Amino acid sequence: MGPAPRILELFYDVLSPYSWLGFEVTRGSRAGSGLQGQCTVRHRLPGSRNSWRCPRVLCRYQHLWNIKLQLQPALISGIMKDSGNQPPAMVPRKGQYMFKEIPLLKQFFQVPINIPKNFFGESVKKGSVNAMRFLTAVSMEQPEMLEKVSRELWMRVWSRDEDITESQNILAAAEKAGMSTAQAQHFLEKIPTEPVKNKLRETTEAACKYGAFGLPTTVAHVDGKTYMLFGSDRMELLAYLLGEKWMGPVPPTLNARL
Amino acid sequence: MGPAPRILELFYDVLSPYSWLGFEVTRGSRAGSGLQGQCTVRHRLPGSRNSWRCPRVLCRYQHLWNIKLQLQPALISGIMKDSGNQPPAMVPRKGQYMFKEIPLLKQFFQVPINIPKNFFGESVKKGSVNAMRFLTAVSMEQPEMLEKVSRELWMRVWSRDEDITESQNILAAAEKAGMSTAQAQHFLEKIPTEPVKNKLRETTEAACKYGAFGLPTTVAHVDGKTYMLFGSDRMELLAYLLGEKWMGPVPPTLNARL
Repeated sequence: MGPAPRILELFYDVLSPYSWLGFEVTRGSRAGSGLQGQCTVRHRLPGSRNSWRCPRVLCRYQHLWNIKLQLQPALISGIMKDSGNQPPAMVPRKGQYMFKEIPLLKQFFQVPINIPKNFFGESVKKGSVNAMRFLTAVSMEQPEMLEKVSRELWMRVWSRDEDITESQNILAAAEKAGMSTAQAQHFLEKIPTEPVKNKLRETTEAACKYGAFGLPTTVAHVDGKTYMLFGSDRMELLAYLLGEKWMGPVPPTLNARL
Repeated sequence: MGPAPRILELFYDVLSPYSWLGFEVTRGSRAGSGLQGQCTVRHRLPGSRNSWRCPRVLCRYQHLWNIKLQLQPALISGIMKDSGNQPPAMVPRKGQYMFKEIPLLKQFFQVPINIPKNFFGESVKKGSVNAMRFLTAVSMEQPEMLEKVSRELWMRVWSRDEDITESQNILAAAEKAGMSTAQAQHFLEKIPTEPVKNKLRETTEAACKYGAFGLPTTVAHVDGKTYMLFGSDRMELLAYLLGEKWMGPVPPTLNARL
């Protein structure tokens, strides 16, 4: 028996594109499930001759490192408010940079991310509170479904530019993730309940207590110490902290422990 | 003969700690010169049993990739003003995060960076205009000295918590980098001259035209296209853009082309 796995907490919101990148790198999807099901087309970077196909088996670091990943659905608007931070697009050049960089990150991370047409004007204003409460309800009763439902919500807002605020759209994502209509309806009814609202508030506050000012926020518990890392660009530093090997955002599947 | 090297422009300011990390990764120092001369002690992360010694030969990516690196001394205060951006510490939690993360990055990047006692209260207020004008003058007349003098200025403010605004301190850094007193004095006299002031202004404006909102800003000219990348955490993405291999911030020297 090897040493006990280190606990990693990944705080995320499906409204945050960088949360998706961090989620896929740490969590990834197993053979025969999840992302590759939705992503069989060849992608092409504008102006580039090269295209790529989402790998059939994404075996990312949850299978490669000695970690136990805890997905923590949180509310990005709550974290921004509590920390006094503002979305990057409040500085116009940061917003422009983000929109130029995401197509590169799409290729680099092999995540089928596309920029919504009016993200800051529409998606951010509509928010993600119902979607994140839905995920919170799932995490409380059926945590094994949390990964897939989260991914399907990202696929809606950050890949196909579809709504995630209306009940029927949250339902559609849950069903696409493999839930029955009855199950999905059950979780939808939990959205306005106090236990779910409180749990999402508590998770968001927990992120803030760790010092979060945005998402994704990763909290690593290593040798009795706690390290908080911000952003999808800190995964290599995370590997260093864990004493694990970093092989880029799409590690070779040959080395997987599967 | 292989393909012509791709041009990389690295815009930096010695007041910016992340600029130093980006600088060392792309630029590094050659055997027998520079960083390792100042850094022979063993470093220890607070609370950790492990210590590390700065490698005797830092052969970083300028020697490993097919690139031609152009160092571009710029003024961070000018870029922040022009873009409407603010230093991270304006959001207190971002400032706290930065101060917690830098000791980790010190180990991870193997750069002897230490947080000044009163950086935001004192160093930022005093600014870096004279130091950056000095480097601009060096870049105009003796560009082969730019790397070493830049590093010695970082060693002052971001390793030993020493002033870089007074003439005698800029002189001391230049001499430590290997300049004669007469040479250093010559560049010091250039600081208030119009050509030097204009050149620093032009370089800062050039960064802004590329979309910069902070430093380091790296501009890669690849296959007739221009990519702007922000931050010391984009070096792996830079490698991907260049089609070069990323081996972490301290690549193994065995693979060096030297």
